Amino acid sequence: MSLKIGVVGYGYWGPNLVRNFTATDDCQVTAVCDMSDDRLAQVTKLYPSIALFQDFDEFLASGLDAVAIATPVRTHFPLAMKALQAGKHVLVEKPMAETADQARQLIAEAEQRGLTLMVDHTFVYTGAVRKIRELYAAGDLGDVQYFDSTRLNLGLYQHDIDVIWDLAVHDLSIIDYVLDEAPTTVSAVGTAHVKGMPEDMAYLTLFYASGMMAHIGVNWLSPVKVRRTVLGGTKKMVVWDDLEPSEKIKVYDTGITVTDDPEKIYDMIVGYRVGDMWAPKVPMLEALAIEAQHFVECIRDGSVPETPGAIGLRVVEILEAATLSMKNRGRPVELGAKK
Amino acid sequence: MSLKIGVVGYGYWGPNLVRNFTATDDCQVTAVCDMSDDRLAQVTKLYPSIALFQDFDEFLASGLDAVAIATPVRTHFPLAMKALQAGKHVLVEKPMAETADQARQLIAEAEQRGLTLMVDHTFVYTGAVRKIRELYAAGDLGDVQYFDSTRLNLGLYQHDIDVIWDLAVHDLSIIDYVLDEAPTTVSAVGTAHVKGMPEDMAYLTLFYASGMMAHIGVNWLSPVKVRRTVLGGTKKMVVWDDLEPSEKIKVYDTGITVTDDPEKIYDMIVGYRVGDMWAPKVPMLEALAIEAQHFVECIRDGSVPETPGAIGLRVVEILEAATLSMKNRGRPVELGAKK
Amino acid sequence: MSLKIGVVGYGYWGPNLVRNFTATDDCQVTAVCDMSDDRLAQVTKLYPSIALFQDFDEFLASGLDAVAIATPVRTHFPLAMKALQAGKHVLVEKPMAETADQARQLIAEAEQRGLTLMVDHTFVYTGAVRKIRELYAAGDLGDVQYFDSTRLNLGLYQHDIDVIWDLAVHDLSIIDYVLDEAPTTVSAVGTAHVKGMPEDMAYLTLFYASGMMAHIGVNWLSPVKVRRTVLGGTKKMVVWDDLEPSEKIKVYDTGITVTDDPEKIYDMIVGYRVGDMWAPKVPMLEALAIEAQHFVECIRDGSVPETPGAIGLRVVEILEAATLSMKNRGRPVELGAKK
Amino acid sequence: MSLKIGVVGYGYWGPNLVRNFTATDDCQVTAVCDMSDDRLAQVTKLYPSIALFQDFDEFLASGLDAVAIATPVRTHFPLAMKALQAGKHVLVEKPMAETADQARQLIAEAEQRGLTLMVDHTFVYTGAVRKIRELYAAGDLGDVQYFDSTRLNLGLYQHDIDVIWDLAVHDLSIIDYVLDEAPTTVSAVGTAHVKGMPEDMAYLTLFYASGMMAHIGVNWLSPVKVRRTVLGGTKKMVVWDDLEPSEKIKVYDTGITVTDDPEKIYDMIVGYRVGDMWAPKVPMLEALAIEAQHFVECIRDGSVPETPGAIGLRVVEILEAATLSMKNRGRPVELGAKK
Repeated sequence: MSLKIGVVGYGYWGPNLVRNFTATDDCQVTAVCDMSDDRLAQVTKLYPSIALFQDFDEFLASGLDAVAIATPVRTHFPLAMKALQAGKHVLVEKPMAETADQARQLIAEAEQRGLTLMVDHTFVYTGAVRKIRELYAAGDLGDVQYFDSTRLNLGLYQHDIDVIWDLAVHDLSIIDYVLDEAPTTVSAVGTAHVKGMPEDMAYLTLFYASGMMAHIGVNWLSPVKVRRTVLGGTKKMVVWDDLEPSEKIKVYDTGITVTDDPEKIYDMIVGYRVGDMWAPKVPMLEALAIEAQHFVECIRDGSVPETPGAIGLRVVEILEAATLSMKNRGRPVELGAKK
Repeated sequence: MSLKIGVVGYGYWGPNLVRNFTATDDCQVTAVCDMSDDRLAQVTKLYPSIALFQDFDEFLASGLDAVAIATPVRTHFPLAMKALQAGKHVLVEKPMAETADQARQLIAEAEQRGLTLMVDHTFVYTGAVRKIRELYAAGDLGDVQYFDSTRLNLGLYQHDIDVIWDLAVHDLSIIDYVLDEAPTTVSAVGTAHVKGMPEDMAYLTLFYASGMMAHIGVNWLSPVKVRRTVLGGTKKMVVWDDLEPSEKIKVYDTGITVTDDPEKIYDMIVGYRVGDMWAPKVPMLEALAIEAQHFVECIRDGSVPETPGAIGLRVVEILEAATLSMKNRGRPVELGAKK
Repeated sequence: MSLKIGVVGYGYWGPNLVRNFTATDDCQVTAVCDMSDDRLAQVTKLYPSIALFQDFDEFLASGLDAVAIATPVRTHFPLAMKALQAGKHVLVEKPMAETADQARQLIAEAEQRGLTLMVDHTFVYTGAVRKIRELYAAGDLGDVQYFDSTRLNLGLYQHDIDVIWDLAVHDLSIIDYVLDEAPTTVSAVGTAHVKGMPEDMAYLTLFYASGMMAHIGVNWLSPVKVRRTVLGGTKKMVVWDDLEPSEKIKVYDTGITVTDDPEKIYDMIVGYRVGDMWAPKVPMLEALAIEAQHFVECIRDGSVPETPGAIGLRVVEILEAATLSMKNRGRPVELGAKK
Repeated sequence: MSLKIGVVGYGYWGPNLVRNFTATDDCQVTAVCDMSDDRLAQVTKLYPSIALFQDFDEFLASGLDAVAIATPVRTHFPLAMKALQAGKHVLVEKPMAETADQARQLIAEAEQRGLTLMVDHTFVYTGAVRKIRELYAAGDLGDVQYFDSTRLNLGLYQHDIDVIWDLAVHDLSIIDYVLDEAPTTVSAVGTAHVKGMPEDMAYLTLFYASGMMAHIGVNWLSPVKVRRTVLGGTKKMVVWDDLEPSEKIKVYDTGITVTDDPEKIYDMIVGYRVGDMWAPKVPMLEALAIEAQHFVECIRDGSVPETPGAIGLRVVEILEAATLSMKNRGRPVELGAKK
């Protein structure tokens, strides 16, 4: 029998959820909940058979098996909690909640009721991130010495959260998925350029016990879109440019070169790289399609999602620590979380 | 009469100095000093008429008007001081000295003797940096809200200095030249991946009284070369990619967009930019050729160079503060320097 | 009252037609016709309210106002003719028909019955092509001296038509839309690498009375996708790279430079360009959305589409001539068509 | 003993010859001949020990072993012939001569006198072209089905030769070096946009007995510089972009895909490529340095150069045929030459 899914929030991300769950096997979108008449009219134009709701309780009572939440962050906790309490499986937009404490409550509620609680860390379901994890897990990169990510947008302002909670959350979920090690300390700097608005650019540094360092730059005020991540390993290095249409991932056969020989130094400067480069084929499937199917399967099988509440919590813990550090101009903040 | 110039240090940068001063009007390279027989043999192969020295004192005594120093940083102070004391004008490689105190002594010595002391901040003489300064000075960018620079190399290890002193020095000299404001505080993080070697990757953040923030990422362990700088202004934004063969500078007609309208938010996400882009023509002349000529002119006219010792000192002061902050995992360090 | 549209052919392009017409105001997709059960099942999954047909006559009899045809080229003529004879407005995939004669018959039939006959030259409705037309029509480019287009794909084989009819048709429709002049002569070379299959790579040259020359390279066997067009004008030149995510169109402030001065020649070689570059903002709307709305409006108002049957015919005439030339290794073929 | 080399022509290319032969072991540049006082003054500024000549006979009589000719094409034959008759080894700029007949006379003269006659097909000595040859010769590409090259410049006008003789000559020398097969027929189209000037844009198609097709597009009126070559093989395909600073050569693990399955067709369209890509390391040495050394070695050993007069002749034969075809709007011209 087909799973009945309801989507709450039909703003920027909601339409993608509806479209993907509609195309997923063994499930159907039967209800959408949003406060705006205009947005609900858009639902009907494309999907005349979906039931519309402006009241969340009525929506919950419409015979749903699961709920996907794509509303502002401040509403994640109350809506997800209500849905869980009503016995619905939940897929919640990133970041999972406004505080680690809220995240813990949601996890406990889902566990107690035996419900699936999954966080929509979409990038974890992309071909690129999975390929990087595969290379790392197979030992091809050696020890990863640094992770450096740049994520720049122009002008997408979210009033209720700052740029770290909006953009760095992606990188934190990617780092958590790809690497086996958890950070011990976080330092962050950032600034807000518009009075009364949250920080619009920020830089996070994560310190690891192994000596690994991760750095994440995020910015809403960039003139160009950038999505670029570098993993520096002792054996090989990876550059992932998510805006490249075809060669998203490039694996460089390079490592650290220590030399005193001025001739070699010169060669390196003019030559740029010291080995071959290899761009493995990366599947081009839409991440959300894979994620939607995974959510449905986890519900059916009772299996743990690849991005469960517990990982959502870990990411929120780092976000909280980064916010604290940023308020103190980069003062390091210790993290308790262990992976 | 033609100025007689001697070059000390014929490793990586020295050959460029010899080539450019040789091609400059009203001067000639009459002597090269280096400890290596092999390197001196290379000089003779290309320039049979240049006199060769392995002893710096004999080199200084060979009838020179000016000396260009392209040796390791730890030798900048003793060699430059000796040259000034021998009455020679001096062009010294960046960073000017190992400490701000050394830089101050050199400035005092040059001033007292009425000699030209110029620091080889090469980027200041590039068409790209001068065009950016021109745009900023004309008010085209509005207030600059942030400066973000990434400078990545593979494998060029300098044993006596860390990556900040090797690479970030470029960005500090560029920021000093382009902007009218001086930073008040610096925070830096960095790490070394090879035992017994200096830091090989680092991130600097400069805070300014106006709210402006500058961030500089430098790395010797990158699999790819990157030279990318963004200036975010209230009116326009500039992206400078120094590895682009033709369109090095792109000026974006974009600014901050604050909106609650989900339709507009969506448009921005899919559209990337909200205005036209313009790539002004940038002269392609070799920076060092312009700089060499400028050095000769300053000596002849007694005029102050665009990169005098005083600016070399300002840059060294920030380098010292950044090193201190990095040793303390990003603890902010105040700067006394005013522009 | 809402226009009822039926889509025939639900293979590669049909789903895009259904999606876009579904989202268009004042119309609805009420029927889809395809021979494949699987494809029809896909329709129902996404659009449960659309009626399904495997018989074209029954489909036509289902109360439609208009028909969009996205089937193999050899079926365009019989299906479009039947639809027109049944009194339906028609939007037909490019190329419009297999022969100019068929195209003429369709035009005559539509005219006689007062029906809208529009050809799906999608690129004409892109922001990029419309911006280029705008620049040309305003005289900003001066006289266009050449048009050079490269359109490379990997592995999309269409058995019933060759690469000219599959890919060059796009460029021919773009040239026809942008420029005011029609070609007088066409020369084409091409080759087939798989026995029994049509030509998979080809080069077309169009000659114009003014001296203008257009060249189109198309290839199904490329290892990389390329969509690159250059217009060389006496005042300015345009480079359109359709795979660029943001700066699709670049306008260069360059022209012909004639010089005997070896110094200047050298400067040009190292400098690449001689003026500024400007990338105007190009609207990012989906072309097919605009085209769908335009089709609906033309039907309602009785106005002539921007890509009417007459233009579809002009393009087919050039395709016929190019095929003839290609069979004779580039022998020039005269064209009768006048714009 | 060191070989004495004289360079005639100190315009655009001559300085590169002087610089590279000066840096080559076992040879020295002892004389430069040019008609311009200004250019000769430039020689003296950089190389005070080189003897200067305005008379070619005096230059030849100055004790030279070999002569490098970098003068306009129309003077290649008389200067090279004089030099050979005076017993000098000769390196002559491309194209070797104005006619195949002249080229044959030079070859005969050199052979009779036992002198080295080498043509400066510089690209043959680049790391990129040698790597492509290596891949082809090892069978990695399979059968090469097409060669497609685009070579675009802005504004470099050479009054005495057209764009085919100026730019396509590079591609013809590369094709000759890389592939084992010689073309049987050539078709060319081109046009001149400035009255009284030679053709400034042209397209050449070479037909081969095996079914292989080569296409070369050259243009002096491009707004951007392009140097892009694609080799399509049955096993692998190569894209060479000579303006890429690091990854000049990309090898694609792709081939021809024939399919009727619409799902697969769709996948290919959105996926762009069907296999991995690999960018082998390409040595970054200056081609002319390698070529200069090769010329010196060939003279010393009496060995046949990699680019001897015989290959210069083959290229000139194709240039002659292409010119004839271009005058007849693409009429195919048969080639007698066998490789």
